Amino acid sequence: MPLDKRDFPLIDIRRHLETGPIVLVTSQWQGQSNIMTMGWHSMMQFSPALVGCYIWEGNRSHAMIHAARECVINVPTEDLADQVVQIGNSHADAGDKFAATGLTSVTASRVGAPLIAECYASFECKLFDDQLVHDYSFFIWEVVKAHVADIVAPRTIHYRGQGTFMVAGKELDFRARFKSQNL
Amino acid sequence: MPLDKRDFPLIDIRRHLETGPIVLVTSQWQGQSNIMTMGWHSMMQFSPALVGCYIWEGNRSHAMIHAARECVINVPTEDLADQVVQIGNSHADAGDKFAATGLTSVTASRVGAPLIAECYASFECKLFDDQLVHDYSFFIWEVVKAHVADIVAPRTIHYRGQGTFMVAGKELDFRARFKSQNL
Repeated sequence: MPLDKRDFPLIDIRRHLETGPIVLVTSQWQGQSNIMTMGWHSMMQFSPALVGCYIWEGNRSHAMIHAARECVINVPTEDLADQVVQIGNSHADAGDKFAATGLTSVTASRVGAPLIAECYASFECKLFDDQLVHDYSFFIWEVVKAHVADIVAPRTIHYRGQGTFMVAGKELDFRARFKSQNL
Repeated sequence: MPLDKRDFPLIDIRRHLETGPIVLVTSQWQGQSNIMTMGWHSMMQFSPALVGCYIWEGNRSHAMIHAARECVINVPTEDLADQVVQIGNSHADAGDKFAATGLTSVTASRVGAPLIAECYASFECKLFDDQLVHDYSFFIWEVVKAHVADIVAPRTIHYRGQGTFMVAGKELDFRARFKSQNL
């Protein structure tokens, strides 16, 4: 189901990425769009908001994303696990992944790649530093626009390898134990 | 409680890191050891097994780890959440974090930094590439030895910011839907 996402402060995007969810990365280049699954990513800086991620060179998305120097990182929840598995096990040659999965493409505001309407969070990214792309296929992105639906404790899915996922479970609140400067 | 960990294949370490848990990074330099919490990390390569991670320059561990060019990445579970919060909110000047938390230091086999006995997984790391350390405080590590206890679906904890954590929840098994080369 398409979700109602709102502008979200860039300084806070770690709240949706640091937990390590599988994400769906969308790309667009020369009129073609694509979606790939990706689990190898890390926050790298609060402001500007930087996220590093590995995109395998053998993946069609690698060339499209490198050429466009843009992408969108979309965060799915458990209800989209079927589509995540389908995308992760299909090839770009098989055709339009939006059509194949029934996911809805939404125009982004700052980049050419589309948002995925059904994902609860979408982060529009521009390539900030490509120095590790050649040797490591590792892209350093600046998130330039964030869209997040107002969901408490989203049931993100986290890849354990060998075809299995862990679903985000219960919450622990330690705010009272944190120093104020660490919150 | 100290856990019985065994040698674990380096090619499979993504199974314990890709889900994005908070980890405890141990360091040792000039006879001093230290522990820090860290949530900004990413797998970067299967073989050699590479992991990238951000270690804030303001953290005492940064200088120790950079000088030693070694560390151990230890993965705690929910039962250690108190100690994780304590470590994340204390300063190296406050003294030995092993003594302060009651965690048990174990000698590593390939690096000077200690393993944490109570963490279910520990990965001994040597600095593989420091080209992003100056600009991004981002270290690229080669995991040279892995120790993992035989725990099914470990209840790792994942930082959501603002003093709250998500605990690893239920498992989804999609093995039957994966192409064999993706397993």
